[in-house]
Amino acid sequence: KRKTQPTTEALVTQILEGNITALSRAITLVESSNPSHLNQANAIIKACLPHANASVRIGITGVPGVGKSTFIEAFGIHLTSEGKKVAVLAVDPSSTLSRGSILGDKTRMDDLVKNENAFIRPSPSGTSLGGVARKTRESIILCEAAGFDTIVIETVGVGQSETAVHSMVDFFLLLKLSGAGDELQGIKRGIIEMADAIAINKADGENLKAAKLAKVEFNRALHLYPEKDSQWQPKVILCSALQREGIADIWEMISSYLEHTKKTGFFERHRKLQNKFWLLQTIEDRLKSDFFNRQKIKTELKVQLQLIEDGK
Amino acid sequence: KRKTQPTTEALVTQILEGNITALSRAITLVESSNPSHLNQANAIIKACLPHANASVRIGITGVPGVGKSTFIEAFGIHLTSEGKKVAVLAVDPSSTLSRGSILGDKTRMDDLVKNENAFIRPSPSGTSLGGVARKTRESIILCEAAGFDTIVIETVGVGQSETAVHSMVDFFLLLKLSGAGDELQGIKRGIIEMADAIAINKADGENLKAAKLAKVEFNRALHLYPEKDSQWQPKVILCSALQREGIADIWEMISSYLEHTKKTGFFERHRKLQNKFWLLQTIEDRLKSDFFNRQKIKTELKVQLQLIEDGK
Repeated sequence: KRKTQPTTEALVTQILEGNITALSRAITLVESSNPSHLNQANAIIKACLPHANASVRIGITGVPGVGKSTFIEAFGIHLTSEGKKVAVLAVDPSSTLSRGSILGDKTRMDDLVKNENAFIRPSPSGTSLGGVARKTRESIILCEAAGFDTIVIETVGVGQSETAVHSMVDFFLLLKLSGAGDELQGIKRGIIEMADAIAINKADGENLKAAKLAKVEFNRALHLYPEKDSQWQPKVILCSALQREGIADIWEMISSYLEHTKKTGFFERHRKLQNKFWLLQTIEDRLKSDFFNRQKIKTELKVQLQLIEDGK
Repeated sequence: KRKTQPTTEALVTQILEGNITALSRAITLVESSNPSHLNQANAIIKACLPHANASVRIGITGVPGVGKSTFIEAFGIHLTSEGKKVAVLAVDPSSTLSRGSILGDKTRMDDLVKNENAFIRPSPSGTSLGGVARKTRESIILCEAAGFDTIVIETVGVGQSETAVHSMVDFFLLLKLSGAGDELQGIKRGIIEMADAIAINKADGENLKAAKLAKVEFNRALHLYPEKDSQWQPKVILCSALQREGIADIWEMISSYLEHTKKTGFFERHRKLQNKFWLLQTIEDRLKSDFFNRQKIKTELKVQLQLIEDGK
């Protein structure tokens, strides 16, 4: 009943040729919780690593309702029209239950899905953010080896996941709404500080005036923060993903960020720091999961936490 | 040559009687890196725990030069004049080298040092923030058992240490300067979001005008953040620690915060969350230090990190 799995060598060769089917299969192996897939997944990643890295990695976050899917579709279409190959991945640990609260429904990106220079993949599932993030990082490597030069990582701005995404991208974009007052609802603390830019979406029609006011306010807020290590002053840009307005401006801004950080050496330095961080993170995650998954530890910890809850 | 150490029982009895010498000795045991002191320290903490917790824990941070020592002295004197017993501790992992960049020089708090209702202790030393923070947390318990009802924890706003302090206090106060522009220099990202209040210090004489402007600006910035779990809207207050102005207002504000959070149940809930966090943190710290201190791991990790640095 089960199809014969292609060999590791065959998969790697096909990935390097840009074969999407092979890329999807390899990502499925990376995402698998089946221990027998682990070795093959690691072998593929190892073979792909020398061909990775030559890309721009862009993180995009924003609360539900901000128009992330519409934005990413418009952004992806603009990029492919400029000759880029765009991979869209997602990090959403909550999707384990809901099975894909973001990017799960690819039909929301109708035009981009059909585009042969775009690859869209929903969030891997997993019980821990650490696991989901690791799988996504490995998928980035595979996408890059398959020739994708622009990697977009989507996440929801409500949990810890944007910290993980922030630590795997070169540029971090926060999407906001222009609606009166509610542009500030539900953002996780610290996200504004992580942002390299804030794009105020749905800045069209009757929203335009409020969006312009929000732009002034955010610009003021951003200036309250100390200078970033990248020496980049975060920008605020208006856009309407639905009308496909402002999208080119955002890409132009990201391009000038890349030019700036490549010139100063920050880009390269930052990637190395991220790689070191992830090496340590992977070791720590493994160390912790090995420990906390022991039945004896689980039982005892539960007892101790209950004692605290009971105030003892 | 060495004096006989008092027994654990004797130390505990004296601590519970409010004996400062015994308290200092016990803290020295907690801070000791001598493994033979570990058991006694743990026994003392265990015996003191049931007598701890009945206090207010206030974190105070701010960059060097903001006037922390002067502020804490004025604040401590105000509190003791209201009948409080005040313990001042510090968290400063960098002090391992400098031996006390904060609170090391007690003479900076001349009046408070002489006050019999105040206890001042410089930062424990230690190579890791985790270790320093754990020692401080244990010292809090000892101080509370000795009858101190107001614990002030000082830290410098330039590293990771305020996150640690934030997670051990009920109220987190950020001290700022009013000077044009430089009130925003050198703050670590995220600190503003942690603050329950910002006190703009040195708001006196020629600085007063700038301080008032800064107050408006910070109030605006604070309103950009989502509501805190405590449902407390962070305040901005002007003060002059040197002139001892605004200090009573700050204590009044903290009192109303306490009243609010005790009424809503947040105070109790938050402390339990902190206790659970610290249980897990202590386990993780131990797990990691056991692992990363193995010589074989150290050597191999160094090799791997160098490979990343070399871009391989």
